[in-house]
Amino acid sequence: MMTILNNSLASRSIKAALCAGVIALLAPSSIRAQLFTFSKQDLMDYTAQEPFDRLPDGRPKVPNDLVERARELASEEVWAVLQQKGFNNQYADGFKILRPGKNMVGRAFTVQFMPLRPDVEDIAESKAKGKGVLRLTNQTAIDMLQPGDVLVVDLFGKKVNGTIVGDNLFYYVMKATGSGGLVVDGSIRDLDGISEIDMPAYFRAVDPTPIGNVMLTGINIPIRIGGVTVMPGDLVVGDREGVYFIPPQLVKEVLDQADEIHIHDEWTKKKFAEGKYKSSEIYSTPSDPKLQQEYREYLKRRLEEIRKKRSPK
Amino acid sequence: MMTILNNSLASRSIKAALCAGVIALLAPSSIRAQLFTFSKQDLMDYTAQEPFDRLPDGRPKVPNDLVERARELASEEVWAVLQQKGFNNQYADGFKILRPGKNMVGRAFTVQFMPLRPDVEDIAESKAKGKGVLRLTNQTAIDMLQPGDVLVVDLFGKKVNGTIVGDNLFYYVMKATGSGGLVVDGSIRDLDGISEIDMPAYFRAVDPTPIGNVMLTGINIPIRIGGVTVMPGDLVVGDREGVYFIPPQLVKEVLDQADEIHIHDEWTKKKFAEGKYKSSEIYSTPSDPKLQQEYREYLKRRLEEIRKKRSPK
Amino acid sequence: MMTILNNSLASRSIKAALCAGVIALLAPSSIRAQLFTFSKQDLMDYTAQEPFDRLPDGRPKVPNDLVERARELASEEVWAVLQQKGFNNQYADGFKILRPGKNMVGRAFTVQFMPLRPDVEDIAESKAKGKGVLRLTNQTAIDMLQPGDVLVVDLFGKKVNGTIVGDNLFYYVMKATGSGGLVVDGSIRDLDGISEIDMPAYFRAVDPTPIGNVMLTGINIPIRIGGVTVMPGDLVVGDREGVYFIPPQLVKEVLDQADEIHIHDEWTKKKFAEGKYKSSEIYSTPSDPKLQQEYREYLKRRLEEIRKKRSPK
Amino acid sequence: MMTILNNSLASRSIKAALCAGVIALLAPSSIRAQLFTFSKQDLMDYTAQEPFDRLPDGRPKVPNDLVERARELASEEVWAVLQQKGFNNQYADGFKILRPGKNMVGRAFTVQFMPLRPDVEDIAESKAKGKGVLRLTNQTAIDMLQPGDVLVVDLFGKKVNGTIVGDNLFYYVMKATGSGGLVVDGSIRDLDGISEIDMPAYFRAVDPTPIGNVMLTGINIPIRIGGVTVMPGDLVVGDREGVYFIPPQLVKEVLDQADEIHIHDEWTKKKFAEGKYKSSEIYSTPSDPKLQQEYREYLKRRLEEIRKKRSPK
Amino acid sequence: MMTILNNSLASRSIKAALCAGVIALLAPSSIRAQLFTFSKQDLMDYTAQEPFDRLPDGRPKVPNDLVERARELASEEVWAVLQQKGFNNQYADGFKILRPGKNMVGRAFTVQFMPLRPDVEDIAESKAKGKGVLRLTNQTAIDMLQPGDVLVVDLFGKKVNGTIVGDNLFYYVMKATGSGGLVVDGSIRDLDGISEIDMPAYFRAVDPTPIGNVMLTGINIPIRIGGVTVMPGDLVVGDREGVYFIPPQLVKEVLDQADEIHIHDEWTKKKFAEGKYKSSEIYSTPSDPKLQQEYREYLKRRLEEIRKKRSPK
Amino acid sequence: MMTILNNSLASRSIKAALCAGVIALLAPSSIRAQLFTFSKQDLMDYTAQEPFDRLPDGRPKVPNDLVERARELASEEVWAVLQQKGFNNQYADGFKILRPGKNMVGRAFTVQFMPLRPDVEDIAESKAKGKGVLRLTNQTAIDMLQPGDVLVVDLFGKKVNGTIVGDNLFYYVMKATGSGGLVVDGSIRDLDGISEIDMPAYFRAVDPTPIGNVMLTGINIPIRIGGVTVMPGDLVVGDREGVYFIPPQLVKEVLDQADEIHIHDEWTKKKFAEGKYKSSEIYSTPSDPKLQQEYREYLKRRLEEIRKKRSPK
Repeated sequence: MMTILNNSLASRSIKAALCAGVIALLAPSSIRAQLFTFSKQDLMDYTAQEPFDRLPDGRPKVPNDLVERARELASEEVWAVLQQKGFNNQYADGFKILRPGKNMVGRAFTVQFMPLRPDVEDIAESKAKGKGVLRLTNQTAIDMLQPGDVLVVDLFGKKVNGTIVGDNLFYYVMKATGSGGLVVDGSIRDLDGISEIDMPAYFRAVDPTPIGNVMLTGINIPIRIGGVTVMPGDLVVGDREGVYFIPPQLVKEVLDQADEIHIHDEWTKKKFAEGKYKSSEIYSTPSDPKLQQEYREYLKRRLEEIRKKRSPK
Repeated sequence: MMTILNNSLASRSIKAALCAGVIALLAPSSIRAQLFTFSKQDLMDYTAQEPFDRLPDGRPKVPNDLVERARELASEEVWAVLQQKGFNNQYADGFKILRPGKNMVGRAFTVQFMPLRPDVEDIAESKAKGKGVLRLTNQTAIDMLQPGDVLVVDLFGKKVNGTIVGDNLFYYVMKATGSGGLVVDGSIRDLDGISEIDMPAYFRAVDPTPIGNVMLTGINIPIRIGGVTVMPGDLVVGDREGVYFIPPQLVKEVLDQADEIHIHDEWTKKKFAEGKYKSSEIYSTPSDPKLQQEYREYLKRRLEEIRKKRSPK
Repeated sequence: MMTILNNSLASRSIKAALCAGVIALLAPSSIRAQLFTFSKQDLMDYTAQEPFDRLPDGRPKVPNDLVERARELASEEVWAVLQQKGFNNQYADGFKILRPGKNMVGRAFTVQFMPLRPDVEDIAESKAKGKGVLRLTNQTAIDMLQPGDVLVVDLFGKKVNGTIVGDNLFYYVMKATGSGGLVVDGSIRDLDGISEIDMPAYFRAVDPTPIGNVMLTGINIPIRIGGVTVMPGDLVVGDREGVYFIPPQLVKEVLDQADEIHIHDEWTKKKFAEGKYKSSEIYSTPSDPKLQQEYREYLKRRLEEIRKKRSPK
Repeated sequence: MMTILNNSLASRSIKAALCAGVIALLAPSSIRAQLFTFSKQDLMDYTAQEPFDRLPDGRPKVPNDLVERARELASEEVWAVLQQKGFNNQYADGFKILRPGKNMVGRAFTVQFMPLRPDVEDIAESKAKGKGVLRLTNQTAIDMLQPGDVLVVDLFGKKVNGTIVGDNLFYYVMKATGSGGLVVDGSIRDLDGISEIDMPAYFRAVDPTPIGNVMLTGINIPIRIGGVTVMPGDLVVGDREGVYFIPPQLVKEVLDQADEIHIHDEWTKKKFAEGKYKSSEIYSTPSDPKLQQEYREYLKRRLEEIRKKRSPK
Repeated sequence: MMTILNNSLASRSIKAALCAGVIALLAPSSIRAQLFTFSKQDLMDYTAQEPFDRLPDGRPKVPNDLVERARELASEEVWAVLQQKGFNNQYADGFKILRPGKNMVGRAFTVQFMPLRPDVEDIAESKAKGKGVLRLTNQTAIDMLQPGDVLVVDLFGKKVNGTIVGDNLFYYVMKATGSGGLVVDGSIRDLDGISEIDMPAYFRAVDPTPIGNVMLTGINIPIRIGGVTVMPGDLVVGDREGVYFIPPQLVKEVLDQADEIHIHDEWTKKKFAEGKYKSSEIYSTPSDPKLQQEYREYLKRRLEEIRKKRSPK
Repeated sequence: MMTILNNSLASRSIKAALCAGVIALLAPSSIRAQLFTFSKQDLMDYTAQEPFDRLPDGRPKVPNDLVERARELASEEVWAVLQQKGFNNQYADGFKILRPGKNMVGRAFTVQFMPLRPDVEDIAESKAKGKGVLRLTNQTAIDMLQPGDVLVVDLFGKKVNGTIVGDNLFYYVMKATGSGGLVVDGSIRDLDGISEIDMPAYFRAVDPTPIGNVMLTGINIPIRIGGVTVMPGDLVVGDREGVYFIPPQLVKEVLDQADEIHIHDEWTKKKFAEGKYKSSEIYSTPSDPKLQQEYREYLKRRLEEIRKKRSPK
């Protein structure tokens, strides 16, 4: 069902070759295997706690309205809930960030690569042929993306030949996901071109070489990005600091607490601006019971306003 | 005299808890000790060479007009005078810089943290109680800040749990110092929120965790930032490169030399623009005695103009 | 023929001294030797493959119109041709980049420094005197720059005292090269001042100290920048990722392929925007022979248009 | 069939607890999941090129006599054959090496860990219960080891809480494998105790904390160590430089070439010791055809001797 | 009371000068201030929990027999007790270790240096003169060492000019402490000479320059080594992995647990050697209640034997 | 005059090929150019201050008896004299050291490599052919080594393909120099084999790949190793810390001062052992004039003894 264009991997250099009319010369790309099995049923089993619908590929589908609300989230707000729930390994940082002022939000679509071994690759290929199916490539993965997805790729930190996309594929990802975003524990190329495309991206490095010397070993399987085990369908939230991968079952709680935190900040700044209090008299908990009471009422009123504003007319 | 709000340290996560109404649940914060004694008299003794007034807390008070003039200083100009005087350890770099285009100038207000030891902490606390005083916290330190201060914090390069402020406390620092600034050999959190607040900041890293696993061991004592011994009241000057800590007694000389350097740059660029000279004929010392004379006259005239402009009417 | 102004090296600190009227006090600078011989004839021999004219100093002169066309090049496009030709060591990265959005293009003017040895320096100086010539300094090098040059300096990654220019010399380089650019495997100073001058620059670090403890050992000799052997006259192309040094004989081919790549990108994006195809059906090679044909015609037409537009009227 | 002793993971600290009689207090360990499926059939399929027998668990069994011959191999000899065959990703280095003078040889037994996610872990556990089987732990993995194995563990470079063994488990691994060896992209603990046990080990770091905050996600599945995809049953060869993972089908060729290289070294050193030749006249290829002939005869004779010596009487 | 020999700091280079008869030429050393006050009473207050005697300088004196028992401790055994007690910041690693096979044990004698500031130094000096006392130097600190001490020095990781001792001073430290040991967050010099002296040492780097450009700011005050707050009198335990600083009040418990751990290891290895059990059946807790009972009896008997052996006859 | 054996560069891998009888298949090696001219006269001019004889190739020849005396030198003793003379850049460290307990001493034989450029290489080759001479290779350099030399190689820190020798070439270097030694700012291969050969070596890394992708650009020219400009004929002294490159004209003075330093150490340790003095009373300068006098007499007597012992009978 899926067309293979392994060639696509080597983008620019291939384009160069292509332009010169040497299509036939293209060596078969080195990125073809899906080594690990993680079936749609496996995926559904291992994400059974999620309370929402699912995407056709089996991933949890955090609803669109929650995805939109998540656009205002900051890392700190996510941290607060996750550590209370015992999820201490959901944050990755140390990335270069393409658009520091533009937060990234979306559902994780995961891809895994491993270092190339010709023997494993050959067998994967003949296994595929034996079943009459075509092998998966990074471009097929890109063709599978859905609106609202963030492409999350484990390229084990590889810089040279670890470039998941150049500006062309980045453009396709942007179109397919509706500017969802990209997280790659690896590199990108064509940074000049990519800088003109409006989609957030988190990457380790930039290099002019095309992807190579690797094999695609899994699509929508559990992967590791830094110290995080990322599950397909996790809500990905990226800000100026780093990226959080929120299990779907915790999304609602994170967002509701964030509402209260926003209101708390509003109120304490407002009080401080009145000039009557020292910071420590208001923040984080007002010492005066009367002020505490005032805050609680403010909180209640503002929460109601927010909910009203959000409810469909 | 001072109110304790240890809770303030864990800002966001605390706020989350707070919002949920669990005020009583808050564990007493782990940041409370002032281990080192450095009395107001010590401070005055060790900064005895400073020629200006003092702040109520004993710190040297570089006058406001000199602070303002220092806003135009570049690291290189500070370096020139300091190395002549034998001060080779007054510069720190390697920071992430919040506002590269906006220089930071102010008087150093120093704070020191050390790794938490429960036994030391317990004793510090009971010592405080024994004297009927309250223990110092990072928020009390913030409440002590004066207009024109820069908050300088030794958190020994700690990233996780080494976040001196989030956006709320950063906002209070901004208000209290009049956008003075922050230097922390440690980290900050809420970078998104902080980016919207107009104050310069120099820090090592960003992390979503609140401050923790440390104890406050001194306020306005000598501290170390990188390779610099910072004294309370030092004039802090930060630009796109790094941060200089200028002993008060050298401030006037640095500023006067900077005036001459600015005039020298003005003149050499003007001469070069005339198109009659090679760079090496003008810069840094003109080879032609006639040009030297011309420069000396230009320098004299411009210095007079500048001084006139600065003198109060 | 050349005037020595060794003093110029210590820029700001010297300026400070100068302003204070202590010209006579200036110690003779420590940067004076040209240790390596690489004659104009050597230079012409080792770049004999270049097909263009030469600059008066013997360097290949890539024509101005090609330099202009190169302004649109991205690293990836250069990579494609160079690796086909077996040039695998022409790319350097890991720089701090002054103006990420403004590409750098120009002809390499190379300068080499080595760590100071007083004995070698003394002999180089007396050798020079014996021949009745003056010694070369970094400022003489700057006076030798031509419009269209990029100054490329090997300072072996030195940070402290490895500052090739401050804002004054950077200004002269900008004027002399017509905003050509600077690449230094070393550092710069006066970043605040330099940020206001409109010229691209690639450097390893920023430091307030003036250049020192080094000796100038060669001008327009082959030098090493990262993993690249740079020849005088190489076409230097810098973008947001890093810097390519293109041997003159390969410039034309790189540019022509880049034209085809630009057209290819144009066409695939246009087709994708039609909404009729999956990315893998168009990119990089269309799978449908009819589409391939369509592309080939589009390519031919667009190439003709471009060439027409470029041809002098 | 397998007994769970999750407790075993926290070795020393647990032992401490145990000794104090607090067995009941032990929290269930956090290391229990096998997330990825890679069946015995998968394993046999993906290693189908191997020419030898198999171990009961399906791994290729490089014969004992070849394992013994491999004890003399150096990294360089492996490199020569592997790169000829297009296997460029079989070498990992950057390890701390327990016994630099004692080479490591054996068959890869692979184990994979990922960062802990409580939701994934819970489901893995209930899945296991549902099937009436027990969950795998690192100690069960250790109990599965065979004589001649090298335990190869992906702990994603984790230092704190990434300690695969302390001295007790290291002792068991030594006993079970017959001093086969350990490679861990992670850390170990009890280095003092381990130093007294006679088995080679390659690790990234040493730390006193027990393993934790991770989940076991696979046993004898393909794993990644540095830039290598390691397959179960690969011949692991470690020397003073690093570790090679040799696909079984290439073992024989590597060993036969190594024989010739050893003889070549023998002969060139012998010739050089005669004092009649410059190194370049003998090494690597003698320039004199007569010497070439002499060498070829020497090679033939020595190979025969070696083979004779090896053949069973 | 104390003699100043600032000159001693520059050891070798000074010695060179000395030998040449240029004693008078010696510039006054730059290491003289004690900036921080931490009185004997402060020290006793902040270590009030320790249950033992004190040294004349006020430091807790862990008894000699416990110091001797601690010689068998491994980092892991210390970790187990300390984390139970909530002391998570007592371990430092990343050192170069002079004698990996020889554990270090002793009482912490702490020294702190900070980057030199001529103004602070001058005032410290005149303060000292005003009181008729001499200033402290690193050599005076060395003269204050007691048998059983480990010299622990904060030189803030300084390499060049951060060399606390050369072979002569290292020899004196060895003599004064009875081969106690040295931990320096800084460097040493004369590694060749030091390698011949039988005392453990932990340091960051080696450099030929003498100590300089720093000032001694405290002796036997709380200092920071890596992530540890070290108190004077802490029991310092160094093995092949790193260094633990054990608060005196926890020493007894650590040692008693270590006894049980040693016995536990003895027993499990003995059982495993019987060949009747899988590792997981014995370690860490035997699954069979009968084996548990057997172990408990073994433990009891062995503990008695050990205690008997230790008790004075 | 010189024979080319480019093949030699790829040592082991070539050997592997060779053994398989594929001599003809060998691609011409990529290491052939001598780009920089530094004639014998240049060499003699730039080392004119050296007071000794010269080797036939023009390098200064520090006499054998001084080379022998230098075997006892430690880095610190060299540092003392060199910094007095204003030579601050003669020390390099950060190497892996093959034989930490065995000091290295010898005369520098320098070799420089740069990253390969096919165009420069081609021209160098045809230039060589035009003059009827053969191109230099790393093995020719090795054949030029003299007894007492240390091979010093600039491979710009290259690890992969930056391996100057494997065990065979290391063996030849050992034979040719009489175990002189090797310093390479690059890597080596065959560490197992090299470990069995008795010669000191200082290198950055170890890798199994043969040297490649570089060109030899100079033999016995000034080169850079770390922060040092090394001149051919410098006395190279390596100990456990790093490597000093001593200009020949300073060797005698360094050695004479070292004699005095050794005597000084002898005396102070002897006095300290008497138990009558505190370290600060003896070291570095005795405070008591009587002790000073005693030391001066001891020094005089011991110097005479040493000189007597050294003088030829």
